[in-house]
Amino acid sequence: MFPYTALAHPNIAFVKYWGNRDNGLRLPANGSISMNLEGLVTRTTVRFDASLPAERVNINGKIAGNAAHQRVVSLVDEVRLMARINHFAWVESENNFPSGAGIASSAAAFAALALAAAKAARLDLDEAALSRLARHGSGSACRSIPGGFVEWAAGTGDTDSYAVSIASPEYWNLVDCIVVISTDPKPTGSSEGHALAGTSPLQSARVDDAPRRLDICRNAILNRDFAAFAEIVEEDSSLMHAVMMTSHPPLYYWQPATLAVMQAVRAARAKGMPVCYTIDAGSNVHAICTGASVGETAKLLGSITGVREVRLSNVGGPARLVENPTTNPYEI
Amino acid sequence: MFPYTALAHPNIAFVKYWGNRDNGLRLPANGSISMNLEGLVTRTTVRFDASLPAERVNINGKIAGNAAHQRVVSLVDEVRLMARINHFAWVESENNFPSGAGIASSAAAFAALALAAAKAARLDLDEAALSRLARHGSGSACRSIPGGFVEWAAGTGDTDSYAVSIASPEYWNLVDCIVVISTDPKPTGSSEGHALAGTSPLQSARVDDAPRRLDICRNAILNRDFAAFAEIVEEDSSLMHAVMMTSHPPLYYWQPATLAVMQAVRAARAKGMPVCYTIDAGSNVHAICTGASVGETAKLLGSITGVREVRLSNVGGPARLVENPTTNPYEI
Repeated sequence: MFPYTALAHPNIAFVKYWGNRDNGLRLPANGSISMNLEGLVTRTTVRFDASLPAERVNINGKIAGNAAHQRVVSLVDEVRLMARINHFAWVESENNFPSGAGIASSAAAFAALALAAAKAARLDLDEAALSRLARHGSGSACRSIPGGFVEWAAGTGDTDSYAVSIASPEYWNLVDCIVVISTDPKPTGSSEGHALAGTSPLQSARVDDAPRRLDICRNAILNRDFAAFAEIVEEDSSLMHAVMMTSHPPLYYWQPATLAVMQAVRAARAKGMPVCYTIDAGSNVHAICTGASVGETAKLLGSITGVREVRLSNVGGPARLVENPTTNPYEI
Repeated sequence: MFPYTALAHPNIAFVKYWGNRDNGLRLPANGSISMNLEGLVTRTTVRFDASLPAERVNINGKIAGNAAHQRVVSLVDEVRLMARINHFAWVESENNFPSGAGIASSAAAFAALALAAAKAARLDLDEAALSRLARHGSGSACRSIPGGFVEWAAGTGDTDSYAVSIASPEYWNLVDCIVVISTDPKPTGSSEGHALAGTSPLQSARVDDAPRRLDICRNAILNRDFAAFAEIVEEDSSLMHAVMMTSHPPLYYWQPATLAVMQAVRAARAKGMPVCYTIDAGSNVHAICTGASVGETAKLLGSITGVREVRLSNVGGPARLVENPTTNPYEI
């Protein structure tokens, strides 16, 4: 069977996903909204091959570790079941950005894997089905299937919990200035973190309040209202970190430089600069600004002590197939 | 009428007071537990004098500003009403520590004022009545009336919302290492902050969970169980800051150095040092350790970049009268 290669972007959430109603199915405690990050990309090739003696999973040029291997195989198993095939798969995945440092590498990885594996198995899945499939690998991966600005409905069960685009990449010229503070792997991975969310006395309140935040954020995007957007994005980020810091055991992701960037961003916005921040399960800060203010914003951020690098990313498109003229995924 | 002089200590809360059920009466949203800080003291002299043409309020050698003047006069009015006198008062108050920098200066100030004013008006109030009176000036001041480790019951109304000692200063040899990061006045005062607490989507959850935290904290103190104490104290501090950061508008008190101290304290405890932290409405960190580990703790804290000073304080006694041989509060 022919190999297929898919590209997908990670995404940065403005209303965050944190905690599951169902850990196995990765049904989220609350809906979320994100944008795809054009500048960052995962490229994944999948080939089902009757001659393979075992599953082969390579990530960034190395044989995948046990945990990553198992997560990939689980998704591939689901595809095989749907396609009624039983060949082993070659999976080759590469990122152009560091893993495990607050840039959601698993989102892009499982979105690209879902698309490439489905196609390689000759399944004809629509966007919603691909989004659901990606969700099974990593919750936020479902948001990396559609393009632009994306909303993932919490849904009532497996079938209606998937992501849809609410605005195209061109709709609003926002830029994510990814302020890299540390590229060390984060101390607690997201899957473990999601499982702890319910131990915080604050998680229920955060979840109950989510419909309000989703409405405000969606409307702010549709109205291109930066002031309203900035306020809800920062509030939502604080809400997630509030839950993290009060979980049992607590999870702390902020570094002193994280806080310095947060302060600098708030101070700049108070002076009229259209910039706000959001922080995932890591120490890096995503400073979101308008295209017109990206030069000024990047300069400010780069001058802060403890900042290693600022990577810029425009709004990205959907997960998509790329031409793959070879039959060997190792030669892409 | 003779002047009376009272001393009172500020206190550091282990289960925090944040938000009121009644802003006027300062009836708290939840109960709280604290210890008095022996090393810090406010000394306040009050004299009611028929010859005074107006109220005179001096704080730290200067005429009090309008807002502070009004808060003092409100409490003095309450005392005059109870004592059925109508002379103006001279109030002279001095702290041996900076105001408005995360060390609760108003708690010690209103505790000392309540005691000195009641006595100067020849009222004979018991500890509960003094604690309630102090509460009317500043909520947490009610906890600076009794000695040692203190619990303030939220109560059902004005009459049963006051603080009592749950253990004497000698009961457990804890030390508060006050890590001074900034002595700038905080951006938002506590009274304003309390009024904003209810605007956070997290405040109800924090309040609803308070009985659990009070039980754990009280038992940890009574059992001198540092591990249980450390965990609940840090959790409670995070819960309050979670509410602050998600209020409308949000309140941010942490500085990068605040976070650096938090990390260092957690790392030291993970290695077996009996130390934990709590942070009030300011950037300073209160690192609580046992008497036996104070040398090691102070050394560690003093070595952190951004730390200006570490002040040590043992557990303090109750608010108390001091001899005042003069009739002029300006000569104390």
